[in-house]
Amino acid sequence: MTHISVQPDGLRARVQEIVERPIVQNVIIGVILFNAITLGLETSKSVMASSFGPLVTILDTLCLMIFVVELLAKLFAYRLRFFTNGWNLFDFIIVGISLAPGAAAFSVLRALRILRVLRVISVAPRLRRVVEGFVTALPGMGSVFLLMAVIFYIGSVMATKLFGDSFPDWFGSLGLSAYTLFQIMTLESWSMGIVRPVMAAYSYAWLFFVPFILLTTFAVVNLLVGLIVNSMQDAHHEEDVAKTDSYRDDVLARLDEIERLIRERK
Amino acid sequence: MTHISVQPDGLRARVQEIVERPIVQNVIIGVILFNAITLGLETSKSVMASSFGPLVTILDTLCLMIFVVELLAKLFAYRLRFFTNGWNLFDFIIVGISLAPGAAAFSVLRALRILRVLRVISVAPRLRRVVEGFVTALPGMGSVFLLMAVIFYIGSVMATKLFGDSFPDWFGSLGLSAYTLFQIMTLESWSMGIVRPVMAAYSYAWLFFVPFILLTTFAVVNLLVGLIVNSMQDAHHEEDVAKTDSYRDDVLARLDEIERLIRERK
Amino acid sequence: MTHISVQPDGLRARVQEIVERPIVQNVIIGVILFNAITLGLETSKSVMASSFGPLVTILDTLCLMIFVVELLAKLFAYRLRFFTNGWNLFDFIIVGISLAPGAAAFSVLRALRILRVLRVISVAPRLRRVVEGFVTALPGMGSVFLLMAVIFYIGSVMATKLFGDSFPDWFGSLGLSAYTLFQIMTLESWSMGIVRPVMAAYSYAWLFFVPFILLTTFAVVNLLVGLIVNSMQDAHHEEDVAKTDSYRDDVLARLDEIERLIRERK
Amino acid sequence: MTHISVQPDGLRARVQEIVERPIVQNVIIGVILFNAITLGLETSKSVMASSFGPLVTILDTLCLMIFVVELLAKLFAYRLRFFTNGWNLFDFIIVGISLAPGAAAFSVLRALRILRVLRVISVAPRLRRVVEGFVTALPGMGSVFLLMAVIFYIGSVMATKLFGDSFPDWFGSLGLSAYTLFQIMTLESWSMGIVRPVMAAYSYAWLFFVPFILLTTFAVVNLLVGLIVNSMQDAHHEEDVAKTDSYRDDVLARLDEIERLIRERK
Repeated sequence: MTHISVQPDGLRARVQEIVERPIVQNVIIGVILFNAITLGLETSKSVMASSFGPLVTILDTLCLMIFVVELLAKLFAYRLRFFTNGWNLFDFIIVGISLAPGAAAFSVLRALRILRVLRVISVAPRLRRVVEGFVTALPGMGSVFLLMAVIFYIGSVMATKLFGDSFPDWFGSLGLSAYTLFQIMTLESWSMGIVRPVMAAYSYAWLFFVPFILLTTFAVVNLLVGLIVNSMQDAHHEEDVAKTDSYRDDVLARLDEIERLIRERK
Repeated sequence: MTHISVQPDGLRARVQEIVERPIVQNVIIGVILFNAITLGLETSKSVMASSFGPLVTILDTLCLMIFVVELLAKLFAYRLRFFTNGWNLFDFIIVGISLAPGAAAFSVLRALRILRVLRVISVAPRLRRVVEGFVTALPGMGSVFLLMAVIFYIGSVMATKLFGDSFPDWFGSLGLSAYTLFQIMTLESWSMGIVRPVMAAYSYAWLFFVPFILLTTFAVVNLLVGLIVNSMQDAHHEEDVAKTDSYRDDVLARLDEIERLIRERK
Repeated sequence: MTHISVQPDGLRARVQEIVERPIVQNVIIGVILFNAITLGLETSKSVMASSFGPLVTILDTLCLMIFVVELLAKLFAYRLRFFTNGWNLFDFIIVGISLAPGAAAFSVLRALRILRVLRVISVAPRLRRVVEGFVTALPGMGSVFLLMAVIFYIGSVMATKLFGDSFPDWFGSLGLSAYTLFQIMTLESWSMGIVRPVMAAYSYAWLFFVPFILLTTFAVVNLLVGLIVNSMQDAHHEEDVAKTDSYRDDVLARLDEIERLIRERK
Repeated sequence: MTHISVQPDGLRARVQEIVERPIVQNVIIGVILFNAITLGLETSKSVMASSFGPLVTILDTLCLMIFVVELLAKLFAYRLRFFTNGWNLFDFIIVGISLAPGAAAFSVLRALRILRVLRVISVAPRLRRVVEGFVTALPGMGSVFLLMAVIFYIGSVMATKLFGDSFPDWFGSLGLSAYTLFQIMTLESWSMGIVRPVMAAYSYAWLFFVPFILLTTFAVVNLLVGLIVNSMQDAHHEEDVAKTDSYRDDVLARLDEIERLIRERK
């Protein structure tokens, strides 16, 4: 989190200074890791049925409180500027999700509490950089993703119309077809599991599925190639260009000087 | 679509100017996306059985009519030059396929109507560029594809002769063998599904299948490597070469000038 | 085939000149493709049972005879120098295999006759270059292959000792274990097909299989990376280095000249 | 093993000189390969039941003794400096594991004896370099590995909480969930084997599994891209930079000289 250089009033300044201390950051990392363990223990029925069960629940609630207090402190210190940092927003949403199931009793929401462990990414700079690398790679892949979406939509409509009546479990609706085509794209049981049974009913089904596999695989390969070429050029530039440019300027400056010397002696 | 600078007569010029207006292009994109939705709705039995069913069919026909009118307008404006643009040809074929099932009642032809959505590629420049990138990558892969075809043909003939009698479902004909070998190349259930049962009858079958897998996988890897190296060099060139060349010319011109100055003072 | 510049006696010189004519090469390509078709037709029971059956067999024999005559002509023309060219040796072995089953009645040898179609690679320069590219890539992968062999041997011995008694079909001998581990390396049904059943008997089996998968996958990835880096550097060098070097020589020669001019005027 | 230049007393110096002789190294390689064969023969029940059985066991023990003597000689020669070399430590552990089962009767420990063959890596320089290349690539992948660990831990906790009750064999505990998610990451039977059965009970299960597949696959792809870019830059640097730098120094030195010459003639 970069220091935001605004002159806040006394209390705000003090709170801001505290939440940015390295020791506070390290304590938060410790609480996250400790919370990861307690959330892991909650999956064990024998632990939760034993006398440790209530203790684990209490420790879990304690960790959540610490997160809430930290976030409130930051919100107080930075006010709305808090939300200008993407990682702050990330922490806010994750802690928010954890608070919701405290009220509700849905098992899905309770399972989402483990997402709190994701906060370790926003706190550890090395992990943060990896995720930022992932995210910056996404826009370059936008066009190929859009194309994949078009291919999947067309494929789903065609598969539903062609095979939906005979194989309702796989191609009964647009959603089922899209899921089955995703499975086929990952090459999982595409032939023995799906296409051979379909071909038993429609012998020309391979005319739809084999081109679909070739097309989507080729698109994925192009995504990969694009990623490699982009990373390569970035790496190439940061290093070489600076060095080469300084050398070029050097040579040209020298040539200017020599030319000036010769001219001036005329 | 690039503007074709020919002096057409008054009406043609006017039609041409209209079909190339950005607003018309955007309307066409809108119609394509709207048509994608109606074609998607047609896959839902509950929607088609409801009172909306006839409406969806009418809207679909309306969209097709708009496409036909647009194409006719372009054909009128550009006459035969219309076909010199590959994307025009692409649109023409796709709309043509959609018109065919209007007469026929084959479900396969009806399913092909969704291909109309592919027109979004020819209209959206970003998607167009991705597809053009795919297509330009193909010729460089020609030799490896040819080699793959040779390997597949030889493999299919051998598999049919060796295993066709015992496993007619998998290797009963050249076509079935080629399909099964494609499945094996994608590594889908190659061992548990195909090769282990075959080995139960012919214990040395792995002498055919394992080298086939190694060979085709290696060929695919080489395709990938070729694609990466090509993309890399293209990217490298567009950027660096221009810069380096201008610097080189600069240095050489300066040296010429200095040499001239020195000589002239003799 | 490069022309070998030795002064042969009259007849040999004439035969050599004939077999190297482009028209003869093209006829051979034609015969190979025609033979590919007849060998493909032989896999069809209905064709072979029809009145065309004997004709196909005769045409096949005719093609083989043409290959034999071509090879004998080359052998006569070049004598032992014939074998100094790797592709000649390749043709010789392939045609030799085709002659063997003419006598024997083993179906495996009959199936190998289709390998004749591989001759299209030695005749078509583009395919030849792709295969030569594959072959030149192999030595650079030698160390990794050796390492893979060590890993597979150790893995096979361990798997046979650990799981051979309970799962004789998969791990009953070194050979069976090696095949099963190859299947696991390709990730085909490794878990549902092999490791989960094994874990039902030996619950810690994943301690052997998961590291094996990670290790072999990582080795394969390193092979791939090595191939890409090698191809890249080759491509880089052929193009850039020549250009850069000529520029460097140019600049240095100019600087020499300028220095000489200045010194000589002292 | 680099020669360690310390003045040892007479006997130590002599032992050190002997163990570093190339002939001794080659004998050790021979013993390793011979031992690999005897350990392979031990997996064959027919061989071990025949009269050769006891001989194989004796030869195996003999090989182990030679390794022990070699290690003791090195330990005597280098004393604690022996452990400063990572490959010595590697040999020490491997031979140590082999000695353990001599006493114990556990079949697992007996199976680990084949690990002795790994010593061929520490003795053969080419294999050693490949493994060192693998190991040096690991730190660069540390952050992504850490991120994968976080994803797997979160995924395991969620899957256990959501699906553990209905599918105890796959998601009954954190360990089982982690194994199943690893299987899903390798795409092995992920849909037909795991996710479709789970979706029969929880129809929205794909909302958990499909993003998990996309996320882990993308992370693996980024690992691969990182490896390629790193290897590339290393290769690039070793070669080009040296050459370019010497040329740059050359040009700048010449320009200095010319400038000096001109100035001095004023």
